[in-house]
Amino acid sequence: MKYIGIDIGGTSVKIGVVDEAGHILERGRCKTLPERGWEAVIHDFGSLCRDMIEKSQWKDEIASIGIGLPGLYLPETGMVPFCTNLYWHDVPLAAEMKKYSSLPLFADNDASVAALAEYISGTSMGTRSSILITLGTGVGAGIIMDGRIFTGHHRCAGELGHMITVAGGELCTCGARGCWERYASATALIREGRKIAEADPGCGIFRAVQGDLDAIEARTIIDLVRENDPDACRLFDWYIEHLCAGLRNLINAFDPEIILLGGGVSAAGDLLLDRVRERMPSMVFFKTMPYARIELARLKNDAGIIGAAMLGKIELEGA
Amino acid sequence: MKYIGIDIGGTSVKIGVVDEAGHILERGRCKTLPERGWEAVIHDFGSLCRDMIEKSQWKDEIASIGIGLPGLYLPETGMVPFCTNLYWHDVPLAAEMKKYSSLPLFADNDASVAALAEYISGTSMGTRSSILITLGTGVGAGIIMDGRIFTGHHRCAGELGHMITVAGGELCTCGARGCWERYASATALIREGRKIAEADPGCGIFRAVQGDLDAIEARTIIDLVRENDPDACRLFDWYIEHLCAGLRNLINAFDPEIILLGGGVSAAGDLLLDRVRERMPSMVFFKTMPYARIELARLKNDAGIIGAAMLGKIELEGA
Repeated sequence: MKYIGIDIGGTSVKIGVVDEAGHILERGRCKTLPERGWEAVIHDFGSLCRDMIEKSQWKDEIASIGIGLPGLYLPETGMVPFCTNLYWHDVPLAAEMKKYSSLPLFADNDASVAALAEYISGTSMGTRSSILITLGTGVGAGIIMDGRIFTGHHRCAGELGHMITVAGGELCTCGARGCWERYASATALIREGRKIAEADPGCGIFRAVQGDLDAIEARTIIDLVRENDPDACRLFDWYIEHLCAGLRNLINAFDPEIILLGGGVSAAGDLLLDRVRERMPSMVFFKTMPYARIELARLKNDAGIIGAAMLGKIELEGA
Repeated sequence: MKYIGIDIGGTSVKIGVVDEAGHILERGRCKTLPERGWEAVIHDFGSLCRDMIEKSQWKDEIASIGIGLPGLYLPETGMVPFCTNLYWHDVPLAAEMKKYSSLPLFADNDASVAALAEYISGTSMGTRSSILITLGTGVGAGIIMDGRIFTGHHRCAGELGHMITVAGGELCTCGARGCWERYASATALIREGRKIAEADPGCGIFRAVQGDLDAIEARTIIDLVRENDPDACRLFDWYIEHLCAGLRNLINAFDPEIILLGGGVSAAGDLLLDRVRERMPSMVFFKTMPYARIELARLKNDAGIIGAAMLGKIELEGA
C-alpha cells in the first residue's frame, strides 16, 4: 500500500506519496498563507492532494491520508481545537477534507508524526520506546511506545517543551514561567546571545553579525562555539545544562529506550551530541543504571510528510 | 486465587494474604532492622511469610508472592540493584526468597505497587491511566497504564520526585539541585516552616511546637493553615505553587486520566485537594482542554500490601 502524508507548516504545506517503508515516492507543495483562514488553506492543500492522487502512478494503492499539524487533533470528532500558528480554532478538518477525498483521514501533532517517521524509517527504527525532541523556535516532543504515538487520555500528552524546569524563570509564550523551551530552544540561544552582544559590542557574537543583533541565529552561536569564542562557549555550556536538565526529567518520567534530538539546534550535530552525552551520566538520577541512548534525528524536513503518511499505515494495520 | 503481598519499609515489613479484589484477609508483621544486613532481613520476613502460608486457611489457593520495596527490582535477574533506605546493593532477592517459598515471586517499587493497589481497589479503579504521587519524606510516584505498572525500558520510569522543577534550586539527596521533592514533600514544608520559626520566635509555627523546632511536622503547618495563621498560609501557598508546577509537568508528559495524591501531606485532605484543584486550571498548558481528575489516594497504609499482592494477579493473568 501507499499513503499520503501532508505536513502543514506555517509557511508551506508539503504533500507526499509514501510507501510502507517510509520512502517518499512523489512530492507536492503549496503555500500555507494562514491569514486567509482555514477554509482557504484546506482548499489549497485539499485540491493539491486530490490532484496528486488522481495523477499518481500508485493511485489505486493509496490507502489513506495522514496530516501532521502544529496543533491538536481529536480523532473522535475530526476537529482541530486549536493550532496556534495557523490561527485555527475548532476547525472541522476531517469533515472539510471529505470534500477533497473519501480516503480515511488521520491527523496528529507535527512533533508526534516526526517521531513516528523516525521510528518507521529513521534513527529509532526497531526500538520499543523513543522520544523525539525538536529544538527549534520552541521545543516539541513526540513519544512513541510499542510502535504507536503516545497520546495520553485527552490527547494532550508529550508537551514536554512546556514542562517547568525553572520555576519562576523566563516568561513563556504559554503564560507560564520557566518552561523548558525558554531554555532549550533555538530561541533561548538567540535571546541569551543577544543579551551578551548588547552588553558588549566588542564580543564575538556582536562581530559575527556585524552589530545587526536581529541577525543572530542559533547557528551564529554554534559557529562561534566551534571557533572557541569564550562568550559563545559559556552560553553553550548554559544551554547544555538546561537541555540536559529537561532530558533528565523525561528519562525520569518515561525511561525510553532512545531519545532523538532534532530541530534547528540539532544541526550542530556532533558538537551538540557529544556535549549532551558527556553531561548526562552525571545528570541522570540512577547513576549506575543504563538509560536512553541519545542520538540525532535523521529525517530532517521529510519527517513531517513521512510521519503523517505513516499514521495511516499504523492505524489501518492496527485496526 | 489469593496472593501474598509483602510491604518492606525501613521500620517494619508487613505481610498480607490478599484476595483478587484487593481485600486483605490475613496479616503479619515483623521489624525490618535493616542495619543487620539483607540476609537477616529477608530471613525474618521470608520465614514469617512461609509460616503464614503454612497456617493460612487459603493455603492451597495462594498463587504468588509479591514484594513492594523502596528501591528498584530487575525481574530478569531477580536482583535488587539498590534500595537505599535498607542499605541494599545488588541483593539477590528472588534467589534468596526461594529458600522460603517456591511460589512465583514478583517485586516492584513501593510507589508503583501503591499505585497498582489504588487501581485494583482504590480511587483509580476503572481508569485507563493513573499516576499516584506520594507526598511524604520524599515525593514518590507510581504510573499505571492499561492496568499495568509503567516501568520504562530499563525499569527506571516514574522517578517524578526527581524531576528538576527549579534548576539551580535546593540541593537534593540525589545530588542534583531543584528536584520537585525538595519543594513538594512533607520535608519541604518542614524545612521552610523551620526557617520561618528560626527567623521569628514570635510566630505561630514557633509557638505551635513550643520552640522545639525539631518537632515541626507537615501536620504542624497544616493545622496552622486551618487556623489561618498568616505565615503558615503563605508557606502553604508556596507549597501549592510548587506542587502544582510538578503536576503540570506530569500532565504535560503523560496526560493521565487521573492523578492521586497520597503520602503524609495528603492527610490534609480537602484542604490540600481544594487548593490544588483551584490552582490547576490556570497552571495547565492547554487551558481549554480537559485534564486529569485530581483525587486523594484511599488505601493509606494498606496500599503496599495490596499492591504487592496484586503484582502476582496481573502478572499471572497477563501470562
